[in-house]
Amino acid sequence: MKVIVDLCVVPSGVGVSVSKYVAECQKVLQEAGLMHQLHAYGTNIEGDWDNVFAARKQCHQRVHAIGTPRITTSIKVGTRTDREQSMQDKISSVKESRN
Amino acid sequence: MKVIVDLCVVPSGVGVSVSKYVAECQKVLQEAGLMHQLHAYGTNIEGDWDNVFAARKQCHQRVHAIGTPRITTSIKVGTRTDREQSMQDKISSVKESRN
Amino acid sequence: MKVIVDLCVVPSGVGVSVSKYVAECQKVLQEAGLMHQLHAYGTNIEGDWDNVFAARKQCHQRVHAIGTPRITTSIKVGTRTDREQSMQDKISSVKESRN
Amino acid sequence: MKVIVDLCVVPSGVGVSVSKYVAECQKVLQEAGLMHQLHAYGTNIEGDWDNVFAARKQCHQRVHAIGTPRITTSIKVGTRTDREQSMQDKISSVKESRN
Repeated sequence: MKVIVDLCVVPSGVGVSVSKYVAECQKVLQEAGLMHQLHAYGTNIEGDWDNVFAARKQCHQRVHAIGTPRITTSIKVGTRTDREQSMQDKISSVKESRN
Repeated sequence: MKVIVDLCVVPSGVGVSVSKYVAECQKVLQEAGLMHQLHAYGTNIEGDWDNVFAARKQCHQRVHAIGTPRITTSIKVGTRTDREQSMQDKISSVKESRN
Repeated sequence: MKVIVDLCVVPSGVGVSVSKYVAECQKVLQEAGLMHQLHAYGTNIEGDWDNVFAARKQCHQRVHAIGTPRITTSIKVGTRTDREQSMQDKISSVKESRN
Repeated sequence: MKVIVDLCVVPSGVGVSVSKYVAECQKVLQEAGLMHQLHAYGTNIEGDWDNVFAARKQCHQRVHAIGTPRITTSIKVGTRTDREQSMQDKISSVKESRN
């Protein structure tokens, strides 16, 4: 099952600067070979369900491992059975509708 | 790894009434033997990471299977390494802080 | 416009224990006279759009005022024009669909 | 109060194709003169709290007006008092942490 995900990681107990922890997740996604795109409030990810969720678990594990006692992440998860759609398709589709 | 999750399932392409699809997810959680509590905008779930995410995948699969072409779910996922905490502990903790 | 909201406040830069800050938001909702129900990963709120969002702004202001340098909140916001629906209606509707 | 927001609009009761409704929100943001950036699972917005939330209310109103009986949106809202930060700063900060 193909999935498009939006992931936002918020570490607690490590002060206000969280970019180091978000960057650790970017490395996890990179190593997993998953298509992903950082934005200002999270990261879009596209891939097979099991691969995406394995990476997602590793994000929690690695962010804990580098010193975060508490993590809350919010994710949106989209699946559809009517047709194939990529992250780029979703953006193009909205842009075309504006015209 | 223990996890506390909040899950909200939004099926698309099935009209405005979505309770049938939310109820299907409740059945999945029940069958999986996971502690869960329905509220007005989602469901709190508590359990081992792998069990919770296996159930979560099954929610998407079963909601598609009963006729939903497109699903978006939003989830919040909390983990902590500093101490054990249950869903009930979280609620009690806020209530005590109000006094 | 009537709205049902789910609100989850995550303060950063204040350590791992956040119940004091969540409790501050509960007080704001109480003072605003809004119907609300705490759960293990947020708070359901029901009311008129402007009242709910005025309280929501005050939550950020008051949580900053008691010492939080950075806040991220996630909210889900539901509106419908086809019929009236309360928080309790939503829960009842899912429970009936399970039978 | 300056705010950075991530907004994701999910209309119900209008079929599986939702780009027309997302595009309507893009127009609202454009007309409001708010900095915003579409991504594959929502839109980042940056601005003054009151302007952003006025636009957000208008999104619900206009998406209902073009024929959607039910809408659920999820938003993340970030504020900080320790320093100024733009959407671009957030992305740059993560990218620098990766090196």
